[in-house]
Amino acid sequence: MSAKKVALFGLGSMGIGMARSLLRAGHTVRGYDIRAEVTENFARESGNNQPFADIAAEIDVAIIVVLNASQAADILFGDQGIVRQMRPGATVMNCVTVSPEDARLAAARCENSDIDYLDAPISGGAIKAGEGALSIMASGSAQAFDKSRECLDAMAETVFELGDAAGQGSLMKSVNQLLAGVHIATMAEALAFGMKQGLEAKTFLQVIQKCAGTSWMLENRAPHIIDGDYSPRSAVNIWLKDLGIVLDAASDIDFDAPITRTALNQYKATADMGLGGEDDAAVIKLYAEQNGIDLP
Amino acid sequence: MSAKKVALFGLGSMGIGMARSLLRAGHTVRGYDIRAEVTENFARESGNNQPFADIAAEIDVAIIVVLNASQAADILFGDQGIVRQMRPGATVMNCVTVSPEDARLAAARCENSDIDYLDAPISGGAIKAGEGALSIMASGSAQAFDKSRECLDAMAETVFELGDAAGQGSLMKSVNQLLAGVHIATMAEALAFGMKQGLEAKTFLQVIQKCAGTSWMLENRAPHIIDGDYSPRSAVNIWLKDLGIVLDAASDIDFDAPITRTALNQYKATADMGLGGEDDAAVIKLYAEQNGIDLP
Repeated sequence: MSAKKVALFGLGSMGIGMARSLLRAGHTVRGYDIRAEVTENFARESGNNQPFADIAAEIDVAIIVVLNASQAADILFGDQGIVRQMRPGATVMNCVTVSPEDARLAAARCENSDIDYLDAPISGGAIKAGEGALSIMASGSAQAFDKSRECLDAMAETVFELGDAAGQGSLMKSVNQLLAGVHIATMAEALAFGMKQGLEAKTFLQVIQKCAGTSWMLENRAPHIIDGDYSPRSAVNIWLKDLGIVLDAASDIDFDAPITRTALNQYKATADMGLGGEDDAAVIKLYAEQNGIDLP
Repeated sequence: MSAKKVALFGLGSMGIGMARSLLRAGHTVRGYDIRAEVTENFARESGNNQPFADIAAEIDVAIIVVLNASQAADILFGDQGIVRQMRPGATVMNCVTVSPEDARLAAARCENSDIDYLDAPISGGAIKAGEGALSIMASGSAQAFDKSRECLDAMAETVFELGDAAGQGSLMKSVNQLLAGVHIATMAEALAFGMKQGLEAKTFLQVIQKCAGTSWMLENRAPHIIDGDYSPRSAVNIWLKDLGIVLDAASDIDFDAPITRTALNQYKATADMGLGGEDDAAVIKLYAEQNGIDLP
């Protein structure tokens, strides 16, 4: 393996785990976060503390793991944009959930600066990020894949190679988010429906996880409700963004997605209760409020 | 094990497998179906061909696996109703998906005739029924469980004991059906959304089944779409019934279930296209029709 010089932007719950997986695999990693303290802590951990401007010309791969498309665009192309600072032939790997159209536009702008672009949204959660065991839904040129290979291997258990054009990775991610977002809200609807009739949350999980009604999200999120723990692993607000991306894309292609729209409305109503920063399992609090249900 | 004398009503895709699992376990089984030919075929297979009236007094357990609550009520309490023909102390095991309220009413009528009633809806599909590997969501008195035990063991891999009153099993089943029904329709919405943007159905299944967007139903039903095989394992019309049961119960308890309601509308629109008898994966044909998508 050839060790890469990596800059990673966004040391949140996913990014920090990915940065550590890269370090463990022997890569040089400089991490950045809008929170100065987080950046400094990781600088101590990684032994690398240079500002990006000082190392831009050496960087092989810049990995973007920030919150949304607008933050990603600012890092890539803003006033201090990294793309114009990187050397020709370097690679940008964008792991942010963005629309396929945004991915295509970002790739085109990078290619104008001779920077390869890998459209590389991620799935799996913070624990898998820390284990280097993510799923990555990637698309881009053969060259972008080649140059990203060692980093992908360090961060992912499974890399889905979804085509040679940016946008195909983000399309798969948006399809996954549609499903995942609806499944969490449906879990809340089903559990609240049962609880109003006397069903206990523990029994619900114990039985349903062995039945045809189960989903990955149900098995992952129902325990948060049973434990009464709404500290955000992934927040309600994330779904306003991600299902928003789905419905914007749906609108662009004139596709009616009534189930997704209904689920998004439930997240919006939950956020309107002031719960946007809580774990997404808090969507059950909307049903609990409407129905006088006592949650654990 | 003590061999039981069992009468099983409803030799459809689930019932026939359950009847064979009971035979394999050494029980005496007499099966009945509204289709005379199906009844005769199973009479040859089981070696038992007596009309119910001739054997009613000998039957230990009557198992009901017909299509809906009205058929079940007719078999139990209609003009030729079996409950008044069975001996006191015999047991009725009702495996039909009915509302919790219908289960409570049927149990009360059985108990008036000194017949024990086990509320015992099933999950798992035809293959597991044939293997004796169903999940059964059961509730009822200790006596009803005791008398049903050998039959449950023959038909089920997992018996969930959900309480001592009829209705608790059916409540869990309705919660499971809410989830399962929404998950199938959501799979169709997500797949069609992707296909309209160039995603292939095979790639969808291959990737999503390893990601957070997966569900038991997605993994079970997406292959039907990939194979273009809409022969009914479970039909669109089943969801008009089962999500109808959920929404009727929701209405009775003043519970708003907008995601379930939206999914039911998709099944209704699919049935309105004349597809009610097709496999429930045919809900994707609604999206395909609306969006000019060519399905495999």
